Amino acid sequence: MRENTARSSVLPVAPSRGRLRPLGLDEVRITGGFWDRRREVNATATLDHCRDWMERVGWIGNFPAAVEGRVHRDRRGREFADSDVYKLLEAMAWAAGSGADPALDTQIAALTETIAPAQEADGYLNTAFGHPGQQPRYSDLEWGHELYCYGHLIQAGVAQTRARGEGELAKIARRAADHVCATFGPGGIEGVCGHPEIETALVELARATGEQRYLDQAALFVTRRGHRTLADIEFGRAYFQDDVPVRDATVLRGHAVRALYLAAGAVDVAVETGDEDLLAAVERQWEATVARRTYLTGGMGSHHRDESFGDDFVLPPDRAYSETCAGVASVMLSWRLLLATGDPRYADLAERTLFNVVATSPSDDGRAFFYANTLHRRRRGTVPPLDAESPRAESSLRAPWFAVSCCPTNVARTLAALPAYVATADDDGIQLHQYADAEIATSLASGRAVALRVRTDYPSGGSVTVRIGRSPDHPWTLSLRVPAWTRGATAWLVDPDGVRRPVAPGTAEVTRVFRSGDEVRLELPMTPRWIGADPRVDAVRGTLAVQRGPLVYCAESVDLPGGHDVDVVRVDPSAEPEDGPDDTVVVPGELAVPGPRHDAPWPYGTTDEDLAPSADRERIVLVPYHSWANRGPSTMRVWLPTTRPDGRSS
Amino acid sequence: MRENTARSSVLPVAPSRGRLRPLGLDEVRITGGFWDRRREVNATATLDHCRDWMERVGWIGNFPAAVEGRVHRDRRGREFADSDVYKLLEAMAWAAGSGADPALDTQIAALTETIAPAQEADGYLNTAFGHPGQQPRYSDLEWGHELYCYGHLIQAGVAQTRARGEGELAKIARRAADHVCATFGPGGIEGVCGHPEIETALVELARATGEQRYLDQAALFVTRRGHRTLADIEFGRAYFQDDVPVRDATVLRGHAVRALYLAAGAVDVAVETGDEDLLAAVERQWEATVARRTYLTGGMGSHHRDESFGDDFVLPPDRAYSETCAGVASVMLSWRLLLATGDPRYADLAERTLFNVVATSPSDDGRAFFYANTLHRRRRGTVPPLDAESPRAESSLRAPWFAVSCCPTNVARTLAALPAYVATADDDGIQLHQYADAEIATSLASGRAVALRVRTDYPSGGSVTVRIGRSPDHPWTLSLRVPAWTRGATAWLVDPDGVRRPVAPGTAEVTRVFRSGDEVRLELPMTPRWIGADPRVDAVRGTLAVQRGPLVYCAESVDLPGGHDVDVVRVDPSAEPEDGPDDTVVVPGELAVPGPRHDAPWPYGTTDEDLAPSADRERIVLVPYHSWANRGPSTMRVWLPTTRPDGRSS
Repeated sequence: MRENTARSSVLPVAPSRGRLRPLGLDEVRITGGFWDRRREVNATATLDHCRDWMERVGWIGNFPAAVEGRVHRDRRGREFADSDVYKLLEAMAWAAGSGADPALDTQIAALTETIAPAQEADGYLNTAFGHPGQQPRYSDLEWGHELYCYGHLIQAGVAQTRARGEGELAKIARRAADHVCATFGPGGIEGVCGHPEIETALVELARATGEQRYLDQAALFVTRRGHRTLADIEFGRAYFQDDVPVRDATVLRGHAVRALYLAAGAVDVAVETGDEDLLAAVERQWEATVARRTYLTGGMGSHHRDESFGDDFVLPPDRAYSETCAGVASVMLSWRLLLATGDPRYADLAERTLFNVVATSPSDDGRAFFYANTLHRRRRGTVPPLDAESPRAESSLRAPWFAVSCCPTNVARTLAALPAYVATADDDGIQLHQYADAEIATSLASGRAVALRVRTDYPSGGSVTVRIGRSPDHPWTLSLRVPAWTRGATAWLVDPDGVRRPVAPGTAEVTRVFRSGDEVRLELPMTPRWIGADPRVDAVRGTLAVQRGPLVYCAESVDLPGGHDVDVVRVDPSAEPEDGPDDTVVVPGELAVPGPRHDAPWPYGTTDEDLAPSADRERIVLVPYHSWANRGPSTMRVWLPTTRPDGRSS
Repeated sequence: MRENTARSSVLPVAPSRGRLRPLGLDEVRITGGFWDRRREVNATATLDHCRDWMERVGWIGNFPAAVEGRVHRDRRGREFADSDVYKLLEAMAWAAGSGADPALDTQIAALTETIAPAQEADGYLNTAFGHPGQQPRYSDLEWGHELYCYGHLIQAGVAQTRARGEGELAKIARRAADHVCATFGPGGIEGVCGHPEIETALVELARATGEQRYLDQAALFVTRRGHRTLADIEFGRAYFQDDVPVRDATVLRGHAVRALYLAAGAVDVAVETGDEDLLAAVERQWEATVARRTYLTGGMGSHHRDESFGDDFVLPPDRAYSETCAGVASVMLSWRLLLATGDPRYADLAERTLFNVVATSPSDDGRAFFYANTLHRRRRGTVPPLDAESPRAESSLRAPWFAVSCCPTNVARTLAALPAYVATADDDGIQLHQYADAEIATSLASGRAVALRVRTDYPSGGSVTVRIGRSPDHPWTLSLRVPAWTRGATAWLVDPDGVRRPVAPGTAEVTRVFRSGDEVRLELPMTPRWIGADPRVDAVRGTLAVQRGPLVYCAESVDLPGGHDVDVVRVDPSAEPEDGPDDTVVVPGELAVPGPRHDAPWPYGTTDEDLAPSADRERIVLVPYHSWANRGPSTMRVWLPTTRPDGRSS
């Protein structure tokens, strides 16, 4: 791996070495289009929404309650409620670092002032443990989340340091990290946290401060896990990945967010310590997980019971858990693997997950969220109350806040840092990984400045134009990811001379001495297409999905004639899906409206006569999956049953 | 409804009126065959097994711990552990009432002596609440299970009274019931238990004692539920059916065992109070649940998270929960509805559930159990330790005991009382509902004695011969259930004159003056047959199952050539399944062994080339579902993907 000499500090992830060098929020700006709208809503609505809710439900108030000695009585929220305050602070710091509302700095300072007095002299900081009337510190590593909370505190502190220089929040975080090293380092408690998260945070702190001890502690936590220091629980030790050491595991398993955070931390440790074996182990786990345990949307986790991965190919659409936070964590992991290896497959999965999980969670107004992201909703839900916490996964509509509300702040910090995921640099030039209207300005390995402007209406359109603003007078390489989803169609690259050549999935490159005004254009095939599944994904046998560009589509009942629900939809696989207006897709098919046996006493037996398909063929309108449930209660499905070869409905 | 004048007291359910009169364990004996083997194993192995485990894990020891004031420190098991001791006592009482091992009475007395001192002066009896250092009585109606535990205590007391006359256990149960009436009756706590069960128990106690106040209290609990006296929880109030009043609900929902116990109790109340509306409401709920929320096996409950029913048609085979206790509870409900209405559909579901859920749970030796009964196991499990509690639902093999171990004792009490489910009487004669080698002796409405002998090797064979042993000299009617599963084939009835006539699903009758030695024969069509599912059961689209008689079949990896797992099986729907040796079924098909794309990086896309089916057709051996997992770790599936119309594998 190459050593990185970062030009920017405003980096969510700042490895000291790796195949690719990340660019900071001061080097990449998203200036319009799909992600800019979401970033804007995040900055102007979601951040305030999260803070207001945490004031209201008392999670912020837990800190003064701890100071005032009444937290055993007055504490609100689950044991990990502190972490959501920290995730909000991290989101605010990245938003501030991208030049959003300057009032953010004041808000960060105010929140920090609320938190600071709750930190004890030895650095301990947690409102759920250790105060009079509470359980002792570290008495419940399985479920207590104390180290998990530090992880998010440290990430917030690092974000502040990188965005604004080390301030009070960063100092609190460092004191907490020092306390962790003293308490869980060699000779201390030989334990790990039931919820991984501190591993990646400590590595980032080591990167931000240059202090080796934080990296050592992170490496110790990664190495310790899998040796059964945590108690066995009903879900088994795989739930918190304490069943098998990280470097011996072959696939991600257990609680999806825990598994993905741990894997991200393991990559960080591997990169900083030059541990190629550990990196290779995580790459293999990623491969197996993507090949066998991932939804078409990029969503991960198919069990509601323990929010966990299922066995290989257990991917039921109607019981998909696909937690928003697992989507966030998957992007974190893929981004780290991309920086370490340069392999575009990691950017492919990040793209899929960003568009179909992360973008699906928040409502258009940024004030309501999906916690779980099902691929099939069978029953029109009820409108979640706008003034109450909701259970986490049971409605067909987004909810404003949850009793366990990890997802809104996780979406917020991801959207706030999103520009950093767009592009990287290396010794040869610049690489574009995600496509959005953007302006990029950095310097190359030569130290010479380079500036690009990206123009696209992706993912609505497939044309991406990169215009060179400033370039050194030596040759360098502009690389563009050609998404894996273009397989089977043809993508084209047009170089500054107007030469147009087909490019295969992977990376397309133009190397030359660029001049200001030069344009490189990538033309991606945006024709909607049928997607089938490996037959081992039993739950979707006999169905097809539709994807257009990176977007997964779905049928939603509000688009069906006659007030029907989506379960009557049958699509004709012999025809091709076509573009409809406003980013919709239209597919030919039928509405197989249940006939006389609709209310059969027993749903098994001979079923040929069960359904009376509507006489006429229908053109069925599909919408991007991320946009569903913004038009009132509805039913929805991604995987659409096909009409049968004999013309009858299945 | 008719008034019942019971000839026997040894009745698990003894309604004072109804369409059919139940027969007692002293009127019906099972003398051989499928159920006799299981009853025998239950009596000789399972009862001891349960007692030994509850000694070992300390659940029996909780009672002396309560007496000795150390229960806050020493208590073992979950909050409902007392109930399993009571369920074992109920099982022992029915076994004693059927004339099994006389040592049972000594064992019941010994256990009763252990329990008795823990009952407090006012009748309160629970080891988890109310003692020094514990939470106060009734401080957690949502999760505390105090009334649930009384329910099982009362059922045990009723069983003892009916089998042996009122003894010490029955007195303890009455004192507890009196305490419940005093505490939760008019003017008392206006609450219900988070786990229904006491409702049916109190009605049985009213039936056994003639005391109206127990019925009144049961009716009060049934009426109170659905009015949101319990707190909202993450799973919603539907979890404990406190969302909608029983008489207003349209389908069973929430936790399956809770829903089914409550429905059984509501039927009991409806029957005793003559509340036809309440009875009709439960019948409608049963209909909707069977039509839309029930597995092919009769199993109920498709969510692991909250052990609950899913939405209509959410019946994933590989995440089937189908808890054994829900099977037991479903049989309890169907039996009550059968007695009240005489409709054979209730006996049909009971048969399906007995053979495919209740019989599936225990191992051949009666010392290990399934808690959940999945319809598709994808991964060979590990052998559960024989000396440790297991988590409840995660292995491919039965486990000896569980941290939550409601199922073994529930199977035990069901098998011990099973003969009572075989036949009933009414003014016209005798009705046979379940087929087993049996001897039946009772008296008819005329008061005249009747005796029958049933001979059959059902469900291996389909011939059931009823030989009249003793009969009055007036005409009466022998009714035989013709199972709904015979639809599409022909069942025959042969009367004592040798006249053979086809009979349709429902009830076949012979009315005459029977003479000793007369034989009536029912010939059921036992040809194995394909079963398809309503297309709204998305999870099994493109697959078929096989049923032979009442038995659901499955493919198990131990029967496949080449060490393959079941996911390579493809069956040819154009051929018919055939009988194989030893109650197996053989179906033509293929082994679609994954080809080069087996380790594809992404399981979605064009999939036609994914699998290279084995060149030769295979004869695939299926075994009865209830018998799976008795031959070591294996994979298994009930729903089998079909070969495609074009001959390629799906």
